[in-house]
Order: sequence, then C-alpha cells, then structure tokens
Amino acid sequence: MPTLADIGEDQLIRRLMRGVKLDRDVIAGAGDDCAVVRSTKHEHTLLKTDALVQDVHFTLDTPPRLIGRKAIARVVSDFAAMGGTPRHAMITLVAPPSMEVKFLTGIYSGMRAISKQYGINIVGGETSRGLMLMLSIAMSGTVPSKRWLSRSQGRNGDALLVTGRLGGSIKGRHLKFEPRLAEGRWLSQHARPHAIMDLSDGLAKDLPRLAEASGLDFSIDPAALPRNRGCTPAQAWGDGEDYELLIAVRPSSVKTLLKRWRAQFPTLPLTVIGHFTKLGKGHRPSFTSTGWDHFALSADA
Amino acid sequence: MPTLADIGEDQLIRRLMRGVKLDRDVIAGAGDDCAVVRSTKHEHTLLKTDALVQDVHFTLDTPPRLIGRKAIARVVSDFAAMGGTPRHAMITLVAPPSMEVKFLTGIYSGMRAISKQYGINIVGGETSRGLMLMLSIAMSGTVPSKRWLSRSQGRNGDALLVTGRLGGSIKGRHLKFEPRLAEGRWLSQHARPHAIMDLSDGLAKDLPRLAEASGLDFSIDPAALPRNRGCTPAQAWGDGEDYELLIAVRPSSVKTLLKRWRAQFPTLPLTVIGHFTKLGKGHRPSFTSTGWDHFALSADA
Repeated sequence: MPTLADIGEDQLIRRLMRGVKLDRDVIAGAGDDCAVVRSTKHEHTLLKTDALVQDVHFTLDTPPRLIGRKAIARVVSDFAAMGGTPRHAMITLVAPPSMEVKFLTGIYSGMRAISKQYGINIVGGETSRGLMLMLSIAMSGTVPSKRWLSRSQGRNGDALLVTGRLGGSIKGRHLKFEPRLAEGRWLSQHARPHAIMDLSDGLAKDLPRLAEASGLDFSIDPAALPRNRGCTPAQAWGDGEDYELLIAVRPSSVKTLLKRWRAQFPTLPLTVIGHFTKLGKGHRPSFTSTGWDHFALSADA
Repeated sequence: MPTLADIGEDQLIRRLMRGVKLDRDVIAGAGDDCAVVRSTKHEHTLLKTDALVQDVHFTLDTPPRLIGRKAIARVVSDFAAMGGTPRHAMITLVAPPSMEVKFLTGIYSGMRAISKQYGINIVGGETSRGLMLMLSIAMSGTVPSKRWLSRSQGRNGDALLVTGRLGGSIKGRHLKFEPRLAEGRWLSQHARPHAIMDLSDGLAKDLPRLAEASGLDFSIDPAALPRNRGCTPAQAWGDGEDYELLIAVRPSSVKTLLKRWRAQFPTLPLTVIGHFTKLGKGHRPSFTSTGWDHFALSADA
C-alpha cells in the first residue's frame, strides 16, 4: 500500500481533492494561495489555512515569539500573493500537556504583535493536546472583486520576475521575513500579473507549480537569480522559505513595471529571472535540489 | 514553571487571549461557538476552527470515513449553536510520512460526503508531516444579522433546556451524530434563546461555561437529565461529545416553545433540565465527573 512518502505532497493533494464539487459562489478553490469566494458586488472573501509543526517548521529551541510571528506571517504572505488584505485570524493549538504555559504565551505574544502590525484581528481558536506542538492558522480577508490575482492565467512568453533575494532563509530570515503585502497590492493595481504566487517551498518546487497551473513550462537563467549574501544559485533555487513574490507579466510591460517599481519600492529588488514557454519547450536549471516536500523522508534542500 | 496540565484548557485560553484587541467589525470573538464578523447589512460572517487529534478524538482503528465525517460534523454543530449556516471549509492535515494514502483518502471521502449533505464547499487546505495524524477544520458561513445567537445574554431565572439525549457517546454516537443545524436555525427564529451552545465537552464542563459567559450560576435537577439508553445521570452529566444544543430561554416562554418544538421535531426531545440563578445561588449535581479537559493527564469522564 503506498504511503505519503511514496507519493509526495502535490500528488496527495490531487488525490484528496478528487471529486470535490464547488458551488458557483466559489471563484477559486484549492490550488491557489487563498480560496476566493463571492461576497459583495465590489469585494470577494479570501480564505486561507496554514500549519506550523514542531521539528518541521520550528524546533523547541526557536524563540517562541518568533514561532508565533512566523505562523501569522506565512499566511499574510499568501494574502499578498492574491493582492488582498488579511482581516480575521483563528488559531488552532495542539500541545503536549507537559508543555510550559510560558512557551505558549510567548508564541501568542508574537502572534498578537504581528497581527497588530498588519491590522489582523485574532477572533478565536481551539486547543487540544497532542504528542507535539502544532499551530494551525485560518485567516479570512478581502480583495477588490476586479483585482484578485490568480496563479493560473499565465501566457506563453510571459516574463517571470521575483521580488527580493532568494536562498539561505534557514539562517534566520524564515523567522523574521516581512510578507510582501503592500507589494502584492501594488502589483495587483499597477502590474496586473497574469500569474502570481508566494515562494514558500522554494523556486524549485513553486515555479513548476505556477507553470503547471497555466498549462505551461518555463525557462530560467540560473545566473539571473537574485541571491542573498553568501548563497549560490543552487541555494537560491532550492532552499525555500523565501516568502518573496513570483509573478508572470506580459513581456512588453516589463520595462515600465521595473521603472515604476523602483520609484515605489527603492530598497527591494524586482528581478527578471526567465519566462514562460509552451509545454516541452522549457529549460530548467540542472541543480539537483527539487525544493521542499513535506512528506519526503529526507529533505534534499 | 506551570505546564498545561497544571492550569487546564479554560485557564490557558484566558491567558492566551489576554491583550487581544478587536476592531469594531468583530461582533463576537473568542469565547462563543463561532466568531461573528460584520459583513453586509443583512448578514454577518461566522468563522470557526476545530481540531481532531489522533488518540484524543479518534484512533487509527476508527474507520477513516467516520473520522472525516466527525471532523466536519463537529464544526457544523458550532454553526448550529449560532443559528447560522456553514458554507466554506478549509482542511489542514498533519500526518506521518509512513501513513497509508488510502487511510487519508478514506478520511476525505467521509468529509466530502457530509459536506455535500450540509451544502458545504471544501475550498482548500494545507498538508504537513508530523508525528501523529491531526486534522484541523476552518469553516466560514453566514447568519442573518438580526438573528445570531450568543452564549452570553442569559438572565437570572432563565429555563435551561437540552435537545436530544445525553451520555454514552463513546459507544459510537460521537462518530455518527447529526449536528442540530436545522434545530439551531429554528430556535433562532422561534425561541430567541438568551444563551445557547453546543455540548461538545459534556454538560459538566459546558454548562458552567454557559453560565459564566452571562455572569450567572445554575441549578440542575439530575433526575431530569434526558439520558441515552443504558446511561446513568452521572454519564449524561459528564461523558461529553453529545453535540446536542443547550439553551437558556425566558421561563414564561417554555410551555409554548415545547409545544411548537414537538410539532416541528416530533422525534427529538427538548427537555427542561434546570435554570440559571444569581452567582452563588446555584445547585450543582454532586457527581464527581467534571467533563472533558484537553490537557488533563488522565481523563476523569
């Protein structure tokens, strides 16, 4: 009988969602950074859930405030990739009875601080015991109905760009990153990307997902990848947890976009790294790393 | 340093939510069965999250379809207690890499079936590995803005009533119960309860919570508790996982309510079990069971 380790995360999700039928008020379901649901004439509702698991996303040596910060920031990053605004959060906490209360109040303190920064209300939650510490965040928010951004409207020839720099997140940035919320909203207004997502599992894993969502392939120039200090192109490709935005835009719009971006966000690079191609016409870097898979028994990144 | 086992679930939640500030569009936050958020003029949004943990809420011997069914049904029960309608669900799944895919597809099959029954769309989710199997469900829905029901508007002298029968859920009903969704909506229209909640942790735990939310105490007649076949009053009081509705209504309305209830739901009992009192004037049953606490090291129920 096949196990999760045998089939991997993406294949698991495909099997689980098989046969799920959606009503007409669901504009985007599983497969985008957030689900999109019709609300009012001018606004859609965005919904997202995300989990942080002990010894997968953090360890008990991680400062608890930073665990809480990261739990919320990861979800904010998904709202950024929709051009949306997060509003209300619910927190599920699973913990061993032997855990010190102080560790948990530290986590919540980190969650409250970043929630305040981004205007998010913590409206409820649930607690249960379990063998290890686990946090699941569910968040709802809004996006103007004419401006929501999807993963799946990419076109052959679209330029691919990333915000910021990639690689080496494990040294600490994965706990302290600023989600690109303002940048996502600005892009939804000024760049109208055909496809967009946030980079949580690494370009190596996420870029093929973005291409597949539009039925396309991609070509990347490894030397063009914007790298964090001390990182190789292979690390920028495979490390993951960058929480930068990856977008696909009409090639003729790139020059103007880069100029306006520099004026708006002078300290944050926006870099062309390649382009979408037809299926079978892509060119993938020859790095061995394949990005982060939650069910791989040994991580290769 | 105190641990979770030392302080228990309710005290933990109080400490975690300390200092949480809410915007004016949040009508009810943590502490009610669902959070209530302003949406349109005629409708509020309801938000709820809930977790099922291996060896706490189910074991790996539980048929997977019933695990999935229970995960969704528990949240539907919370919407019932608000007089609301669940609409969109997101599922977080944490599982060991060694788990058989078939077990998980079984769980999802159970979730899809009951979601279809209640008109719920599964719009997304998240997967991660972990030491044990854990499901967290986040659900959003709606309630007419003039009709949402709260836990906290109980008054001294209100009659306390429960739907259905209590106790012995562990023999199987905890996996197969029907959430009282139609009943909750009917009560919101016809009984206008001052306070209402669903019984997940047992009367012994939940009734004190309901009373406390209104700053009241309660008096219960143990002999009046409606019991499932083969259950003692102590079991009806302390077993938990009944997923029946507990309501507090104006005493003068009871007679008419019971008559209309019998006409509407002829096969489901609605039973007066006691009344709210002023603080310090209550009368609790002398059973030793104190209901279910998620962080108690040995369950006493």
